[in-house]
Amino acid sequence: MTNNLITLAHGGGGERTHALIRDVVLRYLGNPTLNCLDDGACIEIAESRLVMTTDSYVVDPIFFPGGDIGKLSVCGTINDLVMQGGDPRFMSLGLILEEGLRVADLEQVIASAAGVLQSTGVAVVTGDTKVVERGKGGGVFINTTGIGARREGIDVHVGNARPGDSVIVSGTIGDHGIAVMSAREGLRFESDIVSDVAPLWGMIKPLWDEGIPLRCLRDPTRGGVAAALCDIARASGAGIRVREKTLPVRRQVRGACDLLGLDPLEVANEGKAIVVCDPSSTERALAILKQSDSGRDATEVGTVVESHPGTVVMETRIGAERIVDVPSGEQLPRIC
Amino acid sequence: MTNNLITLAHGGGGERTHALIRDVVLRYLGNPTLNCLDDGACIEIAESRLVMTTDSYVVDPIFFPGGDIGKLSVCGTINDLVMQGGDPRFMSLGLILEEGLRVADLEQVIASAAGVLQSTGVAVVTGDTKVVERGKGGGVFINTTGIGARREGIDVHVGNARPGDSVIVSGTIGDHGIAVMSAREGLRFESDIVSDVAPLWGMIKPLWDEGIPLRCLRDPTRGGVAAALCDIARASGAGIRVREKTLPVRRQVRGACDLLGLDPLEVANEGKAIVVCDPSSTERALAILKQSDSGRDATEVGTVVESHPGTVVMETRIGAERIVDVPSGEQLPRIC
Repeated sequence: MTNNLITLAHGGGGERTHALIRDVVLRYLGNPTLNCLDDGACIEIAESRLVMTTDSYVVDPIFFPGGDIGKLSVCGTINDLVMQGGDPRFMSLGLILEEGLRVADLEQVIASAAGVLQSTGVAVVTGDTKVVERGKGGGVFINTTGIGARREGIDVHVGNARPGDSVIVSGTIGDHGIAVMSAREGLRFESDIVSDVAPLWGMIKPLWDEGIPLRCLRDPTRGGVAAALCDIARASGAGIRVREKTLPVRRQVRGACDLLGLDPLEVANEGKAIVVCDPSSTERALAILKQSDSGRDATEVGTVVESHPGTVVMETRIGAERIVDVPSGEQLPRIC
Repeated sequence: MTNNLITLAHGGGGERTHALIRDVVLRYLGNPTLNCLDDGACIEIAESRLVMTTDSYVVDPIFFPGGDIGKLSVCGTINDLVMQGGDPRFMSLGLILEEGLRVADLEQVIASAAGVLQSTGVAVVTGDTKVVERGKGGGVFINTTGIGARREGIDVHVGNARPGDSVIVSGTIGDHGIAVMSAREGLRFESDIVSDVAPLWGMIKPLWDEGIPLRCLRDPTRGGVAAALCDIARASGAGIRVREKTLPVRRQVRGACDLLGLDPLEVANEGKAIVVCDPSSTERALAILKQSDSGRDATEVGTVVESHPGTVVMETRIGAERIVDVPSGEQLPRIC
């Protein structure tokens, strides 16, 4: 059925819906719980302290350099669970398909999601498929909602930063936003810019397993590193000073940002974390982060300070200072 | 801001997004967990046996007689939890808004959802807001994902029906589908047909509290009572015989179905349950159901039988028999 197109009948809840789910969804995501295709899933979690997170993904285009909406939708939700101190366990998958979508494209999206789920041991246990008329959707919109078990003794809330703490970024910034933007606008840069979309469970878990005392975790997605740092500064009632020259930005991304009038600090990432920790742990944290693919460019980029509480200040390359604000509106629509 | 329209900037994840969430979402749905506006919610559930369910709602139009997409999206997910034997506890809310949507309409949708949540004691603990360009969405799409705690000793799986069991429908059928259809097509029938959308927790909970031994529960949404009965028959490996003359169908709904060439048995309901129980419990179950608004027209409509396993047969008004099948495609698109 891979040459076929999605029709409204695929969303009717009858035989056509079941056939689509069986042939495209269960083929890649099947497990004993999901295979029941019941209206809800019975799951077991021994821990009583849980994390729940949801995101709807509307990225345009659905395929971009380095990933697609399927990979993005499961990475984003896994990462939100991890950033809350949770071991990711279960996920739901809600598909809103647009009439006329190629079934082969849907299959590629689902296969891509399945690859990430297998590598992280997270199971999709329940799902839903709807179809809207041509011109009323975006090809595919995906909602994923995740459930995780909170690790005992772990509290990485954005409000925990204290003056003196180190601020680490786990790698180069702005890659995802620029990769999607270039794919959407048909821009060609001197070399390809690839999204960093990745699950961060494999990068963060060793920090906990090794007992590194983290203060805060945040993934700098919409609004970029700027929004993430502002969240930490405001919630913690502390200032943050960032040194621009230490920020890891790929040359191509910097060039593209210059061309497009964007600040890499405000561009979305989908495979990066801001890690705040006590300065006594910085070296060990960096060493552990660098052992994973996603963290190999991890760098200390700033410090939590007592002055200017709630505000993020950047020391620029030329030695000046500027305030880093939360981006107010939509620089790059439909980036995730 | 109620005369304002949704813009792409409301989906950027920055200040405009926060203002919209604060002024429209938190105003109605706020609670200590949701108010954190973190990327995930920390929740506690003592029980380890949980139910998880997800649905995306794309109903067109978003306002229809008897309800709107907000009420529908929380009722649907509460009902799916209840149908799995779960006490509904927590919910996520993912909004995909279309540029140009009236903020006042969004506010009405959220207020409507809030009314149901308050009456059932379910909390929205995490959410997400995205905006897509004009012409790429349907006004509002909503995903709700629910978490419930499974009741000890309750197993109401669709595969549990046994020959001899009674099949009860908790009220009139087809009301939701016809109400949405008439609103969408601008049809006017001799009297208004109103959706039955309602949370079923208040109707089902007393059955459990009173210890009525139920075999199966199913809400006959997409695909209607026909699909729900077929699911039960197939999963249980038993036959079901339904008596057409006992099926509660409003006169206006029957008339509209005749006019539109639809079978009321295949039309979606959003506030009804199929209840299968041992015949010794039928009278008590009916008496309890009838005490709630949603169940006041509850009726025994059929019996589980040994013959024709996996198949549903209807004894028609004129004394003939016909096989009831799962609707194959899309009779009524975007009904939920």
